Amino acid sequence: MTSRIEKLQSWLDDQNIEAVFINSKENVFYLSSFLTDPHERLMGLFLFNGADPLFVLPAMEEGQLKSAGWTHEIIGYSDHENPWDLIREAVKKRNTAGAGKVALEKEVLSYSRSEEFLSLFTDTEVIDAEEKLNELRVVKDDQEIEILRRAAEMADFGVQTGVDALTEGVTEMEVLAKIEYELKKKGIREMSFSTMVLFGEKSGEPHGNPGNRKLQPGDFVLFDLGVVLDGYCSDITRMVAFKSVSDQQKEIYETVLKAEKASLEASRPGSRIGDLDSTARKIITDAGYGDFFPHRIGHGMGINVHEFPSMSHLNDGILKAGMVYTIEPGIYLPDVGGVRIEDDVLVTEEGYETLTKFPKELQIIE
Amino acid sequence: MTSRIEKLQSWLDDQNIEAVFINSKENVFYLSSFLTDPHERLMGLFLFNGADPLFVLPAMEEGQLKSAGWTHEIIGYSDHENPWDLIREAVKKRNTAGAGKVALEKEVLSYSRSEEFLSLFTDTEVIDAEEKLNELRVVKDDQEIEILRRAAEMADFGVQTGVDALTEGVTEMEVLAKIEYELKKKGIREMSFSTMVLFGEKSGEPHGNPGNRKLQPGDFVLFDLGVVLDGYCSDITRMVAFKSVSDQQKEIYETVLKAEKASLEASRPGSRIGDLDSTARKIITDAGYGDFFPHRIGHGMGINVHEFPSMSHLNDGILKAGMVYTIEPGIYLPDVGGVRIEDDVLVTEEGYETLTKFPKELQIIE
Repeated sequence: MTSRIEKLQSWLDDQNIEAVFINSKENVFYLSSFLTDPHERLMGLFLFNGADPLFVLPAMEEGQLKSAGWTHEIIGYSDHENPWDLIREAVKKRNTAGAGKVALEKEVLSYSRSEEFLSLFTDTEVIDAEEKLNELRVVKDDQEIEILRRAAEMADFGVQTGVDALTEGVTEMEVLAKIEYELKKKGIREMSFSTMVLFGEKSGEPHGNPGNRKLQPGDFVLFDLGVVLDGYCSDITRMVAFKSVSDQQKEIYETVLKAEKASLEASRPGSRIGDLDSTARKIITDAGYGDFFPHRIGHGMGINVHEFPSMSHLNDGILKAGMVYTIEPGIYLPDVGGVRIEDDVLVTEEGYETLTKFPKELQIIE
Repeated sequence: MTSRIEKLQSWLDDQNIEAVFINSKENVFYLSSFLTDPHERLMGLFLFNGADPLFVLPAMEEGQLKSAGWTHEIIGYSDHENPWDLIREAVKKRNTAGAGKVALEKEVLSYSRSEEFLSLFTDTEVIDAEEKLNELRVVKDDQEIEILRRAAEMADFGVQTGVDALTEGVTEMEVLAKIEYELKKKGIREMSFSTMVLFGEKSGEPHGNPGNRKLQPGDFVLFDLGVVLDGYCSDITRMVAFKSVSDQQKEIYETVLKAEKASLEASRPGSRIGDLDSTARKIITDAGYGDFFPHRIGHGMGINVHEFPSMSHLNDGILKAGMVYTIEPGIYLPDVGGVRIEDDVLVTEEGYETLTKFPKELQIIE
């Protein structure tokens, strides 16, 4: 049994929970090292209080699950079988204990699967397994950090590729295509979210869509991108100016950079998470742009590009070494343009390290 | 009110259902023409028996919803608000009727959101709204068919781009990168699934992963790809041979092609859906390869790349004009290689039309 599964198993035993069903591909991967996307087909693992674990998946993937190291019972079902019938039989054979409590992933498990799962037991109080898994996943181990580091390097490479592709008249989509092309040639199969390349006034939309806008002298260029590598994500935002930069652009850029650096400096074990947002927000507000920073400072990152914890000013949680999250303050002036600067941050014993390392001094591309 | 919302509204009235919550971005798009991905934030629409519709979404997207034509009540919430509190108030003000029945998307709505939704009502029997939406979505209208046709053209273009990129020693990932690069330059922001380019023996894996396998003379090359265009998907599979082809490869190819054509010919209004699979399967089985065709003949396609109906031999449903689905028989010989040929098919009044048009005669690329 992997140590991660052991931890979840201990939780069941301590809390007197009869069973837990883990269905999301991210949590299945975290617990079992088995990375797959079964799409609409059922896949997941079941842990029990006082009985052996069980993995259910389409029969044609059984071999891959075993290769990933799973040594407990497997239910591999064919397309013409109802996997829940097979699960019901397997659960019946187990002598499970518990106090009428079962756990599932409340935020992601579908209504119909929760109905099937709950019908396996009697008198069930539902406990949220995601809270526990968030707690386990939030501190990354050395192997995870090593992968996150490589994913961040690829994000840096993506930004550099984008910068190299900037020429007068090129469109946002052409630059975006070039970035993803070069990343794919390096073996990246999936971006961690829809890549953003925005020129000029379009950088003023926090969720803008790249299109046929052509690059002109005096434009700011925003790159927001990340990759999925060995199951882990990266997420970087950088801005450069094309040919020239106005005083207003420079002022906004320097304000955001100052806010970002202050928030990074506040990153160390023991800091209140919400203070990272407040620190950056105060700088932006003092500079007169408080109304133009409409989102939280960042989000936890790992197997999901957005995961626990939320880096909101309301978060009273405390930073621990091994946490990884984004810091990404921004100022968005409608119809004018915006600036966002974003790094992936690892909390270390001493303070922090940014995993993304692309330079942040304002560059003017000729 | 759009005619699609009217149809769902009539269903509520006819079935005496008090309210329905539509949360999936695909069904929200289908009903409202509003296409967005709110990620973890709540977005959705509520229809009521005897009261006005309601749309809930992050405040910053309100403008786009109105641009998409929504004229009823909108709850736009900020990050610091709990949208369910606002929804509760809005539902209280409505004088809803019903027989203690409410509807939701059973297969996709999360457990926690279903808990919130159900807590708005008393004594609720849960009805599956997806079944009704599948029934509405399964027959495509002229506007949808026009978009699906353009999405299929882009898939054809993707295959042609891949064929043009084949040279001795090129890797699967290099060809894949080139295909997606050229599609992005044409404005495609999203593939409908992870593109597959597989060489030689790797084409024998129904769910193989492209990698650094280099192209060699005598290889079969499999392309399986599709795009998302204006919210609709395409999905094509084509094979070509590189430099030469063996008798065995030729035999498998011709068998699959014959099976595919027979299944296409069975596509017309009034046909039993399951017969399309059985027709193709009989040809493959008679040729001695029945054990190497492990999946159903295809899947419905539209806003989702896999949607209702499932083109399984068990499906007793009847084809109607306007249905769109894939036909994709395959033969996979482990460690040798495989063949799959896949088209996107539209059922017409007279019979069928393939939306994907890339040639299917076996090509040997020099």
